[in-house]
Amino acid sequence: MLHNEMTKRMQIEHPIIQAPMAGGITTAKLVAAVSNSGGLGSIGAGYLTPAQLRKQIKEVKQLTTRNFGVNLFIPNECKVSKDQITIANNVLQPIRDKLNVQQDKLEMPTFSRMSELFNEQIKIVIEEKVPICSFTFGIPTKEVIAELKQNQIILIGTATTVREAMEIERIGMDIVVGQGSEAGGHRGNFINNFQEGLIGLMSLIPQVVDNVSIPVIAAGGIMDGRGLMASLCLGAKGVQMGTAFLACIESGAHPLHKEAILQASEEQTVLTRTFSGKWARGIKNNFIEEMQEHELNLPDFPVQNTLTQSIRKASSSQNNQDFMSLWSGQSPRLAKNQSVETFMNSIITDATKLRLT
Amino acid sequence: MLHNEMTKRMQIEHPIIQAPMAGGITTAKLVAAVSNSGGLGSIGAGYLTPAQLRKQIKEVKQLTTRNFGVNLFIPNECKVSKDQITIANNVLQPIRDKLNVQQDKLEMPTFSRMSELFNEQIKIVIEEKVPICSFTFGIPTKEVIAELKQNQIILIGTATTVREAMEIERIGMDIVVGQGSEAGGHRGNFINNFQEGLIGLMSLIPQVVDNVSIPVIAAGGIMDGRGLMASLCLGAKGVQMGTAFLACIESGAHPLHKEAILQASEEQTVLTRTFSGKWARGIKNNFIEEMQEHELNLPDFPVQNTLTQSIRKASSSQNNQDFMSLWSGQSPRLAKNQSVETFMNSIITDATKLRLT
Repeated sequence: MLHNEMTKRMQIEHPIIQAPMAGGITTAKLVAAVSNSGGLGSIGAGYLTPAQLRKQIKEVKQLTTRNFGVNLFIPNECKVSKDQITIANNVLQPIRDKLNVQQDKLEMPTFSRMSELFNEQIKIVIEEKVPICSFTFGIPTKEVIAELKQNQIILIGTATTVREAMEIERIGMDIVVGQGSEAGGHRGNFINNFQEGLIGLMSLIPQVVDNVSIPVIAAGGIMDGRGLMASLCLGAKGVQMGTAFLACIESGAHPLHKEAILQASEEQTVLTRTFSGKWARGIKNNFIEEMQEHELNLPDFPVQNTLTQSIRKASSSQNNQDFMSLWSGQSPRLAKNQSVETFMNSIITDATKLRLT
Repeated sequence: MLHNEMTKRMQIEHPIIQAPMAGGITTAKLVAAVSNSGGLGSIGAGYLTPAQLRKQIKEVKQLTTRNFGVNLFIPNECKVSKDQITIANNVLQPIRDKLNVQQDKLEMPTFSRMSELFNEQIKIVIEEKVPICSFTFGIPTKEVIAELKQNQIILIGTATTVREAMEIERIGMDIVVGQGSEAGGHRGNFINNFQEGLIGLMSLIPQVVDNVSIPVIAAGGIMDGRGLMASLCLGAKGVQMGTAFLACIESGAHPLHKEAILQASEEQTVLTRTFSGKWARGIKNNFIEEMQEHELNLPDFPVQNTLTQSIRKASSSQNNQDFMSLWSGQSPRLAKNQSVETFMNSIITDATKLRLT
């Protein structure tokens, strides 16, 4: 079970993908350490400029000769009214005052500007011969898919329901990640609405497996050999782990973010759209609590994300976790601050034990 | 893995419990068929009068000599204002008119009346020497637990978080069911609030297992050998399945309820408190949609449950699924209308195959 068509196709030793977390977490060090330990490291490139992306790819290549992946955000139409922006700025201002930061200058993230960035990112992925490219928040156009495939790049989509997984297969992608409701960070739903897409992995994986022919990867709340073997039993060909790698020594997450996860229990994560305008799971803190009553009136992603940027940055640099986005899946009690190598070895050891029972 | 301290303790062949679904689903035929097939059948007795409970226990005993269980609801204080009842009756009246039913006479379900019923149910469980007794919506008093244990009755609690599971162990129960967010029917949270208690099984089970010493049973979205083996990998000693048994030939669920499950996809179940005043997962239908905007203003369980009783009854007897509570977990695509024996055999066959891979 630990070696299958997916590991063969990706040329990796273990069926373990490090989730492509955006926002500085997936340092070249983390990505390379995962690939060097036999898994698949992935750069969370959603927010990276073309120059940053190229630089990070080159850094990873210097640290590993093995396969790794890049994850991109699919650009979405974003309808935001001036009123929503005013509401958001009004509720954010007291927090800005508290942290002593200025209001962010809002360049409206238009669809054409986001598409332009996406196309440049794709160009770099091709030029740099990145072996694996994954997508979140939707599916690329047929033209982009054709171009990437012509360049022998393996394509991974992200789905929260059977319907989304079937669409990912239909459009011609090679592998689908099934994101369970347990997952930390942003929800990947793109056909279904946020509520419909909150399916627990125990339900999601077997139903997706029964309805697509491409390999399925389980993501959400998986932290160790138990979760890996459980996912394989459900029919997945591998797992994608975010929170578990975020807590590792090599990750670029803020020390307070790692500490918050290590201290948290499963009942403390919540779904919130206060940070970015898109639903995401993180550890409840002051920011989420203060903003909660306005949650449904805030502008859509990525506008709200831009509006809260300086707050999140200042909170980090002031070592104050009250206004940081402390993304985490539902299994923080299982997180450990350890090296990627130690972590990968323990997963495989535990999984192998289970297999023989 | 398929035989362990839990199966030994309960004297059952397979680590499979049929979930004690209340409301006429767990017929003596269903309960006995599960026990006769090597699992543990369970009577969902929450709404049964003492006379009904005794009758059903006797019927089960005539159909099987094997162990079976009875599940009881822990009585809870219920604070309901006259205003809430007025609001509920106002929004329910158009539906009553449509179905041509009278408003239910509301005998306020006071705590003392519920406690009285509970104590009578406990008395019958002891008198009838029921081997296993499980509880939902909380934990019994120390006195009740002591009395049941004196009578060698095995006690099972239901938890939605680690904290609840630890409390179940602390109070002296023998086994804990971890109810994942995938589960159909009523949520079992009793210390944590409803939102905190929505943990997917992939996260819930290993975190509970790491924090209690008593055996843990996984419940929610499990429908076949894949889910059973996945749960065992996560550290559970067995599974409890509701929706899968509800769809079986022997269950007493309304044919339209079974059909709705067989036709549903995973994205169609929702969490609602419109039927009973307590959050529960079911397939979205007209009733849920019509009542949704009033959802948070409706009286608590069991008052709302009483207020909607005649509507649900009439909807059933008129063969109209629009106003029935179509409880279902998040895996309806995996449901089959088959005999319990066929179902049990297929689970074990599939699980055994997985174990050897």
